[in-house]
Amino acid sequence: MDETISIVLFSGTDDKLQAAATSPLARPPWVSRWKIFLQYWGLNAFPGRRDRLRSRLVARSRRGGQGFHRGAAKAGQASWTQTLRMAKELGEVDIQACSASMEILKLKQSDLDSLVDGVEGVAAFYINAGEGQIVFI
Amino acid sequence: MDETISIVLFSGTDDKLQAAATSPLARPPWVSRWKIFLQYWGLNAFPGRRDRLRSRLVARSRRGGQGFHRGAAKAGQASWTQTLRMAKELGEVDIQACSASMEILKLKQSDLDSLVDGVEGVAAFYINAGEGQIVFI
Amino acid sequence: MDETISIVLFSGTDDKLQAAATSPLARPPWVSRWKIFLQYWGLNAFPGRRDRLRSRLVARSRRGGQGFHRGAAKAGQASWTQTLRMAKELGEVDIQACSASMEILKLKQSDLDSLVDGVEGVAAFYINAGEGQIVFI
Repeated sequence: MDETISIVLFSGTDDKLQAAATSPLARPPWVSRWKIFLQYWGLNAFPGRRDRLRSRLVARSRRGGQGFHRGAAKAGQASWTQTLRMAKELGEVDIQACSASMEILKLKQSDLDSLVDGVEGVAAFYINAGEGQIVFI
Repeated sequence: MDETISIVLFSGTDDKLQAAATSPLARPPWVSRWKIFLQYWGLNAFPGRRDRLRSRLVARSRRGGQGFHRGAAKAGQASWTQTLRMAKELGEVDIQACSASMEILKLKQSDLDSLVDGVEGVAAFYINAGEGQIVFI
Repeated sequence: MDETISIVLFSGTDDKLQAAATSPLARPPWVSRWKIFLQYWGLNAFPGRRDRLRSRLVARSRRGGQGFHRGAAKAGQASWTQTLRMAKELGEVDIQACSASMEILKLKQSDLDSLVDGVEGVAAFYINAGEGQIVFI
C-alpha cells in the first residue's frame, strides 16, 4: 500500500487529457499516490491565464480532441479539469510541471492553474517515480 | 511466470494498432498473460459493424496511419487484426473495452468485433493490471 | 542498482524525440541502463543518410513538432540528437532498431545513424526489458 503510479502527461488534446484525468480515480489497494508530470503540450493545457488558451499553439495541439470533447459532454461526462479536481479530493494526486518545458513555453509558476502543485526536473521525476509504473500519455 | 503486461490502446491509427497487436506475440518466460484495454480511438477501431469504419470520426483518426499501412502490406506483414488473432491463438490475450469510452461512442457490446472479450471500467483495469507493466499506446 | 528503463520510441516528431532523448539523462540510483527501441516513425527519424530526411513520410510525421522545435532552440536547449549523444557519454544507453520496422521502411543497418547500436525483434525487446519499466513514446 505504498506504491506510486506516475503519468507523464505530454499530450495536450482533450481526449488524452481526459484519459490522464480519469486514471487517478482508480485506487488499487497497493497504490497510495498518483503523480502527474506535465510536459510540453500537457503543460500548455494547464495555464491559469485564460488568454493563453486562445494561442495558436494550443489551437493546433487541441485539434485532434475536438470531436472527442463534444462526444464526452453529450454522454454527460465531466470535463478533464473537473475530473482532476475530483481525483484530488478522493486521494493523493500530485501534479508537477516539467522545468525544461516551463522554459520552452516561457511560463512562470504563477502562470499555471492552481491544480499544479509545483515544478520539478526530469531527473527528479524519475527518482520520485521510484520503481512504480510510469505511463506516458 | 505469472505476470501480466497491460496495454492501454487509446490510439486508433493503423500504425499504432499494429504496434499494439505485435506486442503480445512476445512471450517472455515470466509473462503468462497480455491484456489490451481499448479506450476512445482504439475502441473505435474495433467495431463489428462494418459501416462504422466509414464514419468521419474514424476517417480522421486513421489519417496518420495510411502511409504506414501501405508500407506494411508491401513488406508482406499481416494486418493488425490478423496479428491479434494469431497472438490470441498462441497464448492468453484478454481484450477489454473501456466502459466510459463505450458511452462516449454510443457503442453496445454487440457492436464490437468478436476479438473483444468484454467491457470493464478504468478502476477495474488498474486493479487487474496489478503491479505489472502498463504501456499506453 | 541493476534495473533497466526501456523506452519504445514509436513517434518521430521533434517534440517526442526530445522527450525520449532527455529521459536517459536521469540516472536514479537503482537504474544502471536505459534502452531505446526504435519503431516506425521513431526509427525513421534516425537515418544516417541525409536524403531520407527530406522524404514525404518524414515531412508528414514531423509536422506536429515544428513549433516545439523553434521554442526549444530559442530557450537555448540542445537538439534531441545532441541530448542523446550526451546521455550516452554519461551512462549506458542502448539504442536498438525494431527489425519489423526496418522491413517496412526498407532500411538496412548501414542506413542508420551511428547512434543506433543494433537491430532486434519485438520478442527480444520484451525479454531484454525484463521486469523493468517500459515507456511507450
